Amino acid sequence: MKEEAEIYLEFWYDFASSYSYLATVQIGAWAQVRGIAVRWRPFLLGPTFESQGWNSSPFNIFKRKGDYMWRDMERCAALYGLTFQKPLHIFPQNGLLAARVALCLPDGVQRGTFTKRVFQAEFAEGKDIAEWGTVVRILEDMAQDASVILPQSQSEFIKGILRSYTKEAESKRIFGVPSFVTPDGELFWGHDRLEQALNWCSGDAAR
Amino acid sequence: MKEEAEIYLEFWYDFASSYSYLATVQIGAWAQVRGIAVRWRPFLLGPTFESQGWNSSPFNIFKRKGDYMWRDMERCAALYGLTFQKPLHIFPQNGLLAARVALCLPDGVQRGTFTKRVFQAEFAEGKDIAEWGTVVRILEDMAQDASVILPQSQSEFIKGILRSYTKEAESKRIFGVPSFVTPDGELFWGHDRLEQALNWCSGDAAR
Repeated sequence: MKEEAEIYLEFWYDFASSYSYLATVQIGAWAQVRGIAVRWRPFLLGPTFESQGWNSSPFNIFKRKGDYMWRDMERCAALYGLTFQKPLHIFPQNGLLAARVALCLPDGVQRGTFTKRVFQAEFAEGKDIAEWGTVVRILEDMAQDASVILPQSQSEFIKGILRSYTKEAESKRIFGVPSFVTPDGELFWGHDRLEQALNWCSGDAAR
Repeated sequence: MKEEAEIYLEFWYDFASSYSYLATVQIGAWAQVRGIAVRWRPFLLGPTFESQGWNSSPFNIFKRKGDYMWRDMERCAALYGLTFQKPLHIFPQNGLLAARVALCLPDGVQRGTFTKRVFQAEFAEGKDIAEWGTVVRILEDMAQDASVILPQSQSEFIKGILRSYTKEAESKRIFGVPSFVTPDGELFWGHDRLEQALNWCSGDAAR
């Protein structure tokens, strides 16, 4: 039997990121059509921002850019047929709990489904994803046992994985999210580069 | 006779901007197909950057983002079938002369052609657009009289137009280039939003 190397695309995201919501909703179906596996890579972008001297999202620091981003999100969501609601009170939200819980779920369908539902809660349903209740309801909807997963998410093992993903993102020179990294090391930044990244994986694109 | 309002899209750019090169090459043909007139709006982005505390392009200040931009430019140019060459010595180049000369040419085909050729000189041919020789050659290729236009470009009248465009860009809350502004005031940022902007003008898009 011939063994075929799996074609995959790494999807790097921070649960606080608005544009990651758009990518999260699209990537699963788009990748499946092309036979590309998605590797779900939640991490914390905060340290990267801090290393640039930013103590918040650049969308808060650079107000004009931030105002634009929310309008662009509205328009893009309308184009893609997605529900979108600007978080009323908090941006960026604290995505630490969601990231740790995501890492308790196996990479693939389960982590992908959880990720999508967290972003929907945050950017379509006006929920605070830092609240345990929000995460518990998502896990229950997925028929997962929250009473097992939540304590596990606070374990040193899971914290360690999140730290190692965050370091790996640094080493891959990721500076914003969503980002996509191909097996041959090409970095694509922005939900609007998702199609290019997938084409790159398939070898369709000009290379 | 019925008078029809012209459908137009304002195209705001700074001659130093790499991504404006990509938009410049595409916008003419894409707009023409849709019956949309392009209003060419060169201006100086420097004051906006300075108001954010930046004394250079953010692609120089944030090195990782800058490295990414050059790779992204290479890939996008390859996708679009464009020649692209990273400027060897200077980035961003000084686009003041080019902007003033552009404003000596009537808005429309002539200003558009000049704009395209300047960006090609800068990002495809390794030329320095701050040099008078570069601009003179472009004007001569266009059968324009450089000996009339260059002195005119240094007149108070033309300087004033450039200042007023730069103020207008500020008032339209432009924070980066290329940007596109529709007659009803929608702002789109990035060459990768050009199609959305044109669709918006045509009334094709979700609004």
